[in-house]
Amino acid sequence: MKSKLLLSLLALTLAGTAAAQVKPEDAIKFRQSGYAFMSWNMQRIKANVEGQYNKDEVIKAATAIQAIANSGMGALYLPGTDHGKGWEETRVKPELFTNKEGVGKVAGAFVKEANEMAKVAAAGDAAASKEQFGKLSGTCKGCHDDFKIKK
Amino acid sequence: MKSKLLLSLLALTLAGTAAAQVKPEDAIKFRQSGYAFMSWNMQRIKANVEGQYNKDEVIKAATAIQAIANSGMGALYLPGTDHGKGWEETRVKPELFTNKEGVGKVAGAFVKEANEMAKVAAAGDAAASKEQFGKLSGTCKGCHDDFKIKK
Repeated sequence: MKSKLLLSLLALTLAGTAAAQVKPEDAIKFRQSGYAFMSWNMQRIKANVEGQYNKDEVIKAATAIQAIANSGMGALYLPGTDHGKGWEETRVKPELFTNKEGVGKVAGAFVKEANEMAKVAAAGDAAASKEQFGKLSGTCKGCHDDFKIKK
Repeated sequence: MKSKLLLSLLALTLAGTAAAQVKPEDAIKFRQSGYAFMSWNMQRIKANVEGQYNKDEVIKAATAIQAIANSGMGALYLPGTDHGKGWEETRVKPELFTNKEGVGKVAGAFVKEANEMAKVAAAGDAAASKEQFGKLSGTCKGCHDDFKIKK
């Protein structure tokens, strides 16, 4: 009886959090958008740590990356979105939908380094930002190598 | 002599902050990505304030919107990006490049309400979030009415 109640509550919770029904093509478009927007902000940080360092610019860029990294984009990898077109054909590898442990590892590393990037950016030290930018870039590449089809 | 030095310093600063050279088609793509990603997060907040309210979900969505709103997307409206294709043909109206005062007004309103949305979301009150979501949506619409070509 108790477990039935728990199951009902769980179902209710899942229904609640799944309330924003997203169409597969929109889910693909939204995740492509998140990555593209982060890519702009990675370029901005790169330009700053390799050129003249503007603290505010790096903070804005790092904050955007951090917020997108922590936004729960995993929800956009809906069943049925292993193929399909958002802005363009998705380049996700089928492994992303099957290798939960591997995905958890690269996603966790990315979120950790994105949070650290925002912290380092706030402190405003160019050399430290450059080092942390390298670590963050590494987590992007790690995920792309394993779960994104090369062009 | 002093003013020449100041001018040189200014030129250096501008060169420094413009270091991230963005191609026009990329600038259009990046801004389309920012808006699309915010649109996903607006949908999530809407689903929460109209359905079952999940505080964490709303915080994540509002934080992403706030960070993108404050990221300095204005820099993506480069000269020469009044026409052109990012993910798709830009729908920006020419007025965005000429009506500085009008743009400043809608952009300022949007950033203000996005910051307020993040604050209200953090407090976790569903009714207050619903009200603030309405205000934030209004600023999206205000800008679209004036500066975005309808489909």
